[in-house]
Amino acid sequence: MERIDIAIIGTGPAGISAAITAKVRNKNLMLIGKSSLSDKVSKAHQINNYPGLPAVKGEEFSKKFQEHLNDMKIAITDQRVSMVYPMGEYFGIQTSEGMLEATSVILAAGFAPDKTFKGENEFLGRGVSYCATCDAQFYKGKKAAVIGYNEESELEADYLAEIVEEVLYFPMYKKEPVVSKGVKVIYEKPVEIKGGMKVEQFVTAQNEYAVDGVFILREVISPVKLVPGLEMAGNHVKVNLQMETNIPGLFACGDIAGKPYQYIKAAGQGNVAALSAAAYLDALKRKNNHNQEEK
Amino acid sequence: MERIDIAIIGTGPAGISAAITAKVRNKNLMLIGKSSLSDKVSKAHQINNYPGLPAVKGEEFSKKFQEHLNDMKIAITDQRVSMVYPMGEYFGIQTSEGMLEATSVILAAGFAPDKTFKGENEFLGRGVSYCATCDAQFYKGKKAAVIGYNEESELEADYLAEIVEEVLYFPMYKKEPVVSKGVKVIYEKPVEIKGGMKVEQFVTAQNEYAVDGVFILREVISPVKLVPGLEMAGNHVKVNLQMETNIPGLFACGDIAGKPYQYIKAAGQGNVAALSAAAYLDALKRKNNHNQEEK
Ligand SMILES: Cc1cc2nc3c(=O)[nH]c(=O)nc-3n(C[C@H](O)[C@H](O)[C@H](O)COP(=O)(O)OP(=O)(O)OC[C@H]3O[C@@H](n4cnc5c(N)ncnc54)[C@H](O)[C@@H]3O)c2cc1C
Ligand SMILES: Cc1cc2nc3c(=O)[nH]c(=O)nc-3n(C[C@H](O)[C@H](O)[C@H](O)COP(=O)(O)OP(=O)(O)OC[C@H]3O[C@@H](n4cnc5c(N)ncnc54)[C@H](O)[C@@H]3O)c2cc1C
Repeated sequence: MERIDIAIIGTGPAGISAAITAKVRNKNLMLIGKSSLSDKVSKAHQINNYPGLPAVKGEEFSKKFQEHLNDMKIAITDQRVSMVYPMGEYFGIQTSEGMLEATSVILAAGFAPDKTFKGENEFLGRGVSYCATCDAQFYKGKKAAVIGYNEESELEADYLAEIVEEVLYFPMYKKEPVVSKGVKVIYEKPVEIKGGMKVEQFVTAQNEYAVDGVFILREVISPVKLVPGLEMAGNHVKVNLQMETNIPGLFACGDIAGKPYQYIKAAGQGNVAALSAAAYLDALKRKNNHNQEEK
Repeated sequence: MERIDIAIIGTGPAGISAAITAKVRNKNLMLIGKSSLSDKVSKAHQINNYPGLPAVKGEEFSKKFQEHLNDMKIAITDQRVSMVYPMGEYFGIQTSEGMLEATSVILAAGFAPDKTFKGENEFLGRGVSYCATCDAQFYKGKKAAVIGYNEESELEADYLAEIVEEVLYFPMYKKEPVVSKGVKVIYEKPVEIKGGMKVEQFVTAQNEYAVDGVFILREVISPVKLVPGLEMAGNHVKVNLQMETNIPGLFACGDIAGKPYQYIKAAGQGNVAALSAAAYLDALKRKNNHNQEEK
């Protein structure tokens, strides 16, 4: 597997800025996220405080970013990251399409409050999962509940239904879900995940269901759930002025790294994160060359 | 004297961004610096990593910033700040044109290494000054040396010559100075400032001159010289992620607040500094209202 220098997760202002600066620094990078860029950019009404682009409409703002990416020949890898595993000198990155490897990682995935269901943390990896395409195989012939936060979750539920015996789908959004007939839509409020060694029951405000797995498909995954061992400061990733986290080689920027939630601040921190990642890579290379020479 | 809410010192990306966000937050602000904006913006060849403005030339970049300021009706106060005095609940700001008062101050004056002449720190306020228009009056009928770092210093030397008895002018730049006949230009390398209670001698690599005052007119004043009591981290103002300094109500952003030296990072930090200043003002107001009610 080719190992990327810098994997950047998120295509908002923070991730885009990180990618642009990583490219300027001639690093081998991968920008992972929605190719339509952040909704928070494109769907904004009008932005007044991004210096250099006075009174810019969200759609235009998004176009400017896309033009900049095109101009620098930066492609977006349209995938969703479900897990980042720190492996020492590199990171394993699980996405909707498979595994990737990167020497350094920049988290620019936006803000996600760490709201969890009762039992969620307890059963994570023992029946609770955040990625249907990654973990469906473990539930062949079994029963699973899916908590879907947007229409994209419907596709994952459909995929699950091809493999598992029964899929219960709990939509957390207004629009009526369109799912395959193997998926049973239930309009109830999820409350708790229960079990013994593994997940056994899924409890709603109205009922209790016997299940083997619960898939929670949130719009944005809380950073603690994304990266095991990541140190937080409240609901945000703990960073210093160089955007370093507690894990060497892992950086964070933008909304995920704390308030204020602002475009230009996110872009500024993305730039700093990319330069810090570049410095990390250079130091690692020097160290490895040195070790090579010693042998 | 009208007291400004937020005084912003410096018209580079950091100061401009701070002004724009302060305006969005409806604060009464003053943006102080060169009305031609930062040379580091206008004189750059091409900038590739300011997201949203791909491959932008320096001149165009500067124009975009100016347009944004115009768009938001932000005027520049074309003055030079020589000193910021923390006075508790407000700041006294000495500029080339007089004194100003502000409840909070944002330092966005760019990077200046703290290179000092021998004796400079020792005699600061006892014969050493950074502002001719501010301190000329103290040298009526006396002798002064001026170390000039650019052509603008010539005007200050001329002004001094109208008041003091004798002005020796030491240019630190290539171009031949054009000064009034009361100013004596000397092409020697300044080395040391000596004296007892007050300045008495000005020493160059070649000679020693008896003087009562030494005016050092640097392009950028080191932050420690600009604000008494300001805590530094090496050559930079010490800040946290909210751009707070050790002095309540005083914020710093951009190159002055540390590496990396980058436009988008400076603009991002300017935004954060303005929001922190706004929060500081709001908290102060609440506190004062509360105290009012108690009485
Ligand atoms: C309605 C509204 C109006 C606003 N107005 C302003 C304003 O006027 N001025 C201002 O400065 N700020 C404004 N903001 C704030 C601004 O939108 C945010 O601060 C900014 O978008 C943060 O940028 P970011 O890159 O950190 O995160 P985001 O823009 O949130 O981008 C994060 C990206 O990461 C992606 N992502 C998340 N998880 C994953 C994953 N696991 N795998 C792959 N990709 C993932 C997301 O899909 C998203 O595209 C506004 C916000 C809202 C909601
Ligand atoms: C040749 C060159 C090329 C560069 N190229 C790039 C690049 O490609 N990409 C990139 O991201 N960065 C680049 N940089 C770095 C970039 O220029 C700086 O990081 C950026 O300008 C910092 O912004 P700032 O607002 O902090 O400070 P500055 O831009 O330095 O602005 C500070 C302003 O404050 C004013 N000031 C100072 N003291 C006072 C005072 N006492 N009173 C009033 N006003 C005062 C100054 O006159 C100046 O206008 C380059 C720098 C140089 C020199």
